[in-house]
Amino acid sequence: MSLANGRRYLAIPGPSVLPDRVLAAMQRPSPNIYAGELVDMISGLWADLKRLAGTQGHLAAYIGNGHAGWEAVDTNLFSRGDRVLVLACGNFGHGWANALRALGVEVDLLDFGKRSAADPAQVEAALRADTSGQIKAVLMTQVDTATSVKSDVKAIRAAIDAAGHGALFCVDCIASLGCDDYRMDEWGVDVTLAASQKGLMTPAGMVFVWFSEKARLAGQGAGLRTPYWNWGPRANPAPGEFWEYWHGTAPTHHLFALRAALDMIFEEGLAQVHQRHARLARAVWAAVECWGQGNAAIGLNVAAPAARAGAVTSIRLGAPDATRLRTWVEAEAGLTLGVGLGMGTPEDPKADGWLRLAHMGHVNAHMTLGAIGVIEAGLNALGIAHGAGAVAAAGKAAFAPHP
Amino acid sequence: MSLANGRRYLAIPGPSVLPDRVLAAMQRPSPNIYAGELVDMISGLWADLKRLAGTQGHLAAYIGNGHAGWEAVDTNLFSRGDRVLVLACGNFGHGWANALRALGVEVDLLDFGKRSAADPAQVEAALRADTSGQIKAVLMTQVDTATSVKSDVKAIRAAIDAAGHGALFCVDCIASLGCDDYRMDEWGVDVTLAASQKGLMTPAGMVFVWFSEKARLAGQGAGLRTPYWNWGPRANPAPGEFWEYWHGTAPTHHLFALRAALDMIFEEGLAQVHQRHARLARAVWAAVECWGQGNAAIGLNVAAPAARAGAVTSIRLGAPDATRLRTWVEAEAGLTLGVGLGMGTPEDPKADGWLRLAHMGHVNAHMTLGAIGVIEAGLNALGIAHGAGAVAAAGKAAFAPHP
Amino acid sequence: MSLANGRRYLAIPGPSVLPDRVLAAMQRPSPNIYAGELVDMISGLWADLKRLAGTQGHLAAYIGNGHAGWEAVDTNLFSRGDRVLVLACGNFGHGWANALRALGVEVDLLDFGKRSAADPAQVEAALRADTSGQIKAVLMTQVDTATSVKSDVKAIRAAIDAAGHGALFCVDCIASLGCDDYRMDEWGVDVTLAASQKGLMTPAGMVFVWFSEKARLAGQGAGLRTPYWNWGPRANPAPGEFWEYWHGTAPTHHLFALRAALDMIFEEGLAQVHQRHARLARAVWAAVECWGQGNAAIGLNVAAPAARAGAVTSIRLGAPDATRLRTWVEAEAGLTLGVGLGMGTPEDPKADGWLRLAHMGHVNAHMTLGAIGVIEAGLNALGIAHGAGAVAAAGKAAFAPHP
Amino acid sequence: MSLANGRRYLAIPGPSVLPDRVLAAMQRPSPNIYAGELVDMISGLWADLKRLAGTQGHLAAYIGNGHAGWEAVDTNLFSRGDRVLVLACGNFGHGWANALRALGVEVDLLDFGKRSAADPAQVEAALRADTSGQIKAVLMTQVDTATSVKSDVKAIRAAIDAAGHGALFCVDCIASLGCDDYRMDEWGVDVTLAASQKGLMTPAGMVFVWFSEKARLAGQGAGLRTPYWNWGPRANPAPGEFWEYWHGTAPTHHLFALRAALDMIFEEGLAQVHQRHARLARAVWAAVECWGQGNAAIGLNVAAPAARAGAVTSIRLGAPDATRLRTWVEAEAGLTLGVGLGMGTPEDPKADGWLRLAHMGHVNAHMTLGAIGVIEAGLNALGIAHGAGAVAAAGKAAFAPHP
Repeated sequence: MSLANGRRYLAIPGPSVLPDRVLAAMQRPSPNIYAGELVDMISGLWADLKRLAGTQGHLAAYIGNGHAGWEAVDTNLFSRGDRVLVLACGNFGHGWANALRALGVEVDLLDFGKRSAADPAQVEAALRADTSGQIKAVLMTQVDTATSVKSDVKAIRAAIDAAGHGALFCVDCIASLGCDDYRMDEWGVDVTLAASQKGLMTPAGMVFVWFSEKARLAGQGAGLRTPYWNWGPRANPAPGEFWEYWHGTAPTHHLFALRAALDMIFEEGLAQVHQRHARLARAVWAAVECWGQGNAAIGLNVAAPAARAGAVTSIRLGAPDATRLRTWVEAEAGLTLGVGLGMGTPEDPKADGWLRLAHMGHVNAHMTLGAIGVIEAGLNALGIAHGAGAVAAAGKAAFAPHP
Repeated sequence: MSLANGRRYLAIPGPSVLPDRVLAAMQRPSPNIYAGELVDMISGLWADLKRLAGTQGHLAAYIGNGHAGWEAVDTNLFSRGDRVLVLACGNFGHGWANALRALGVEVDLLDFGKRSAADPAQVEAALRADTSGQIKAVLMTQVDTATSVKSDVKAIRAAIDAAGHGALFCVDCIASLGCDDYRMDEWGVDVTLAASQKGLMTPAGMVFVWFSEKARLAGQGAGLRTPYWNWGPRANPAPGEFWEYWHGTAPTHHLFALRAALDMIFEEGLAQVHQRHARLARAVWAAVECWGQGNAAIGLNVAAPAARAGAVTSIRLGAPDATRLRTWVEAEAGLTLGVGLGMGTPEDPKADGWLRLAHMGHVNAHMTLGAIGVIEAGLNALGIAHGAGAVAAAGKAAFAPHP
Repeated sequence: MSLANGRRYLAIPGPSVLPDRVLAAMQRPSPNIYAGELVDMISGLWADLKRLAGTQGHLAAYIGNGHAGWEAVDTNLFSRGDRVLVLACGNFGHGWANALRALGVEVDLLDFGKRSAADPAQVEAALRADTSGQIKAVLMTQVDTATSVKSDVKAIRAAIDAAGHGALFCVDCIASLGCDDYRMDEWGVDVTLAASQKGLMTPAGMVFVWFSEKARLAGQGAGLRTPYWNWGPRANPAPGEFWEYWHGTAPTHHLFALRAALDMIFEEGLAQVHQRHARLARAVWAAVECWGQGNAAIGLNVAAPAARAGAVTSIRLGAPDATRLRTWVEAEAGLTLGVGLGMGTPEDPKADGWLRLAHMGHVNAHMTLGAIGVIEAGLNALGIAHGAGAVAAAGKAAFAPHP
Repeated sequence: MSLANGRRYLAIPGPSVLPDRVLAAMQRPSPNIYAGELVDMISGLWADLKRLAGTQGHLAAYIGNGHAGWEAVDTNLFSRGDRVLVLACGNFGHGWANALRALGVEVDLLDFGKRSAADPAQVEAALRADTSGQIKAVLMTQVDTATSVKSDVKAIRAAIDAAGHGALFCVDCIASLGCDDYRMDEWGVDVTLAASQKGLMTPAGMVFVWFSEKARLAGQGAGLRTPYWNWGPRANPAPGEFWEYWHGTAPTHHLFALRAALDMIFEEGLAQVHQRHARLARAVWAAVECWGQGNAAIGLNVAAPAARAGAVTSIRLGAPDATRLRTWVEAEAGLTLGVGLGMGTPEDPKADGWLRLAHMGHVNAHMTLGAIGVIEAGLNALGIAHGAGAVAAAGKAAFAPHP
């Protein structure tokens, strides 16, 4: 006997829930890839994607996932032996650093652990120490999907400037674009990275790299560049060479899906979309804090509110309760939560004490309050102690008067 | 600023939420209607529909909605001037009575108000009083969609038997089939009626009439029968005359949708489906009772638990708060609730004091607990007094150990 | 070994091929049926449906198929014992007559056989003979789907006028609306009937009845009228009573499909749609005539070009070759043709000498020329003698300079 | 006035026509990417993909297009300065060579022009001349999509063997897999490459690389290998590391589409699928030869039948008639043909004398005969001279008794 059958809610931090309108947009025959609707659609798509990232710079798109995006950035900017500074706040910061090392790039790593944002002071210090200007770029995640730590992009920019360092500034917004506020040009970012399957509400399979003219020039001699990753023709195809946008056949159906998703975002308004995510995140935080009042083992991974993501929340329950709960809510109530990626410790090697609740993309109050209600039912059913009143607290946090 | 954008939940008592699998099943070209997959599919569909209703009797299907179903039943059984006994527990009981009257059938109406199940004793008395056996049929709703009152079909059958009356027994299960337990043959029902868009999780457009051999014989001289409504060839087409199943072109895409929906029901198990609805209903009741403890204006329409539907719950909030709340949850949180159909009074002509929360068909704990959480957030936001702890109480009720 | 796997072409005269855009429009969740997009959409739909039929009169819509449409017309206009004149040019003319008789209406039948249009002179004579004005209505098909005979609606109107008879004029356009030119008001028609699954390119399940004010008044006392068929509230619902449009729950997904289909029709232009059908029909005629030059058994059912439908063509091949060919093209080449409905004779009881090739709705030159090419390949493969050059002749006929 | 509106046929050589079943398979919510249906599906998918390519070797899959596939092969096998032998029979052979050069690989190019298959004798001679065994690999297309030239993979293998050379043998089957017969292991191929959007009938966005153990070992020291392209973990992920199959997030919806497509292929039977393509190709050849009898400018690009592809046919019409015809059939009849990619000459710089008619993937006799019929109508309409009887000849070629 289960209460899971119904519209299941996949609340993992990507792939996110697909709007019906996005799915319906994929219900079409293969289009011509040399002329017609698909070709005509690109200029509007590119304009909206730039607007989404807050830039008037270049945009190169790839058929690929987030890891493809890393490699696109890395190979267009660097040569073997180059040196970079990577700021890590979780699994994905380390993952990017490892990808760079595997390409022969020397990585200076600033590891901020799993619970704190990148510290601008340490960044400034590291850059000041690089008196010979060897560090070609500072790379960071706005949000690390694994820990749900959000770093302050603007503050890191300020740190780079304070150090008077000329390094490029590259930000991985895979988990955050379309969820948390982001302003590439205003904040002085040179390279931005995002994928289709999170805040963009489109099936996995596309990744986008926005880059400034400064980045383009700096990367011109990049020894790692390959024909496929080369962002030049993708960002600025020769006239009539539509295939260069994708270096070959375009991801036809994804593009119609993306068009629908961007329409939804801009119909709602980008500021409203950000606010929605912020409020749903606050709802989740309020619930976890409520539960934690009855059980010290329960808590948010990130203490500082300013360092918490708008798209996903990493939650501590203690091992093995997080895994027990995840299993229960999926089997009994139709809710799938994310695993505690990268949160393993010697005492809890499989991270059975952690889970993640996503609130990214196509998500509203009903979905998030429902998730909280289901988690609370699971805590009860499994006999896990917890404070009372979480859903009410969550609802109040979500709908509090505008700050 | 709204938190409604996301997967909206239409929680009105029909049309109900369509499973993705049902929608995907409609994504196909027009089939041949003379041979092939569509024709071959009918026998399995009919078998499963009979299994769903608990009968080995006949089945006639119609392209149409619930009102078409009434007319199908009425015209196949009755002649102008016939007399029937209708048991009304809300809007739809009265609606059926009115439809019968408009066809020239004389209706004896037992009106049980809007908050109580049909009373077997009164039925028995009415039939005993019909010493000349003029009443050709007893007609009732298992659940009245408007009031969410459920009547005890088995008990009414017992009352008919106790009266020693030979009337046909006809039950409208439009709001209940696939939600509440129902056993046509075991309970001695002669005619059962259900539509596609509620517990059957299929778009509106088909209505089904199951009938016993006794009903078939009794209706043979029905003066109201027309070529279109005639259930004979629909239930038992001549060999090779597939078109007779639908008296013309079949509802091609609906049939594939229905096939997917029935597969889902029987894969879950019919008993499990009924249990799921029962538990989700109890969750809603627990929540309303909780809210009511802080505000006497809030309450369930139906006092007796045995008389409450598994598919929908009618809730009193007092005018105009029900309407205010409905408006708020739709605009702010992505939840659409049902209006208080037929609940108007001189003091509250537009039924602004009533709403309905459906839990029929493709619905799970996440959806229902989310709806309750959202309603509670709305009560808070609108300053409507209410008792605390509703979601927790609902979760406990839903997942209480099996009785 | 078969060459059928690929996009199969169902070329039967309904259900017709569904445009991808129509199918995609059905890929959406259940809508609210009390307010919102669905409700707001009706006025535009109704306006476009009236424009399609060429009328400013009333429109009543039904969840149902073509047979439901007949019963809607019959019950709204007539009483038991009324007398009507039915013009039959095939199976469906007789079918309508039978339906009327089953309802107790007296039918005067003018049977024009299976190969000729209704003869205005005979209609005029029949009406002149009705000196006491007993005939309440003249009923006909514009196109009989079975024989592909098209009658001249305007000429029949003229005959009624010439006879000075006041009968209502009712035209079944199920097979022709959206294919052949039709102008209800201009041609003086009182009642028009059409269904969703042919020229309207929408799945089966809706049928439409347009009626003039004269018809409305004439039908006011109709004794056969029932609550479900009653066209009054459907055509002119009380304010706020959206449910009256459909006398109950609306066919939600069909309406979105219909919206897409009507958009396609009017984006192309109604005159262009009619021209396209006319030209594709001429292509088919040219092909059949070509084949017939090498085999006297092959020919068009309808000799007079003016009496041939734009939507479907009935073709004679001689028994059992038509059935052999139908079987072959479906199994070997992915083309499904229509059976010779109602064409049976004592010598050919199952009409194995006849088939129908539809060219209705979402059909273009590639589809029709492909069907002709496949039929020719089948004639060859089966050793059925035939004249050469059919596809070339068909192409020339289709693309001949505009007359 | 146009006859194009209807189900348009995109007959370009990729993306190919998507089966409705494949499209419907994408109509589903985002799946969990850590466990469940998606994860469970992989082993069956991989088994079927290996069966399709005729190998028991390794399989690495990438989110990407054909160009991504080239880079995957190149970077997993080679280091800067390595030397390879590329066999070019058109645009894509040269393209692969250019991609290799851009990566720093030295390319010996055997250019067989645009109308002939790769010559085994020349391959053998080139390998014999490489006495020091510097050539690491021989790379070729089975079919060059641009010229429709098919080379004999088995014969090239024999040439390599005859030369006693140890080079790896890599075959690009992007345009041919699922269309032309192919047997990787039996024919001694080390690396095979194919993409989703042609014979695999799935939207663009996935590319597959099958490789032998010999290739795996030979590529171990490949200096060009990067984390993203690395085929090792993709082909043989660590237990429980589902993400390694795709080096990150999987292309969720594409996988369900691919599952449906592979089911269709194996339900039909791989041999039957190959036969279907062979027969449809012969139909096209017969038609072109027929037209050519009336106009010397019209002809097949490839003279030798054995060197013609089963998936696409390149056709010469003479400039500007090919472009005029392409434009006409798209605008007037709903058929989109491929441009003459890479066929430009000084006299015809834009290749206005060439077009391509694809017959790859989800294509049947109706589609191909329809395309031929439409082209013939276009030749007529545009006054381009041509021999008569093409469609009949095509039909006979398609359905000739099995050789």
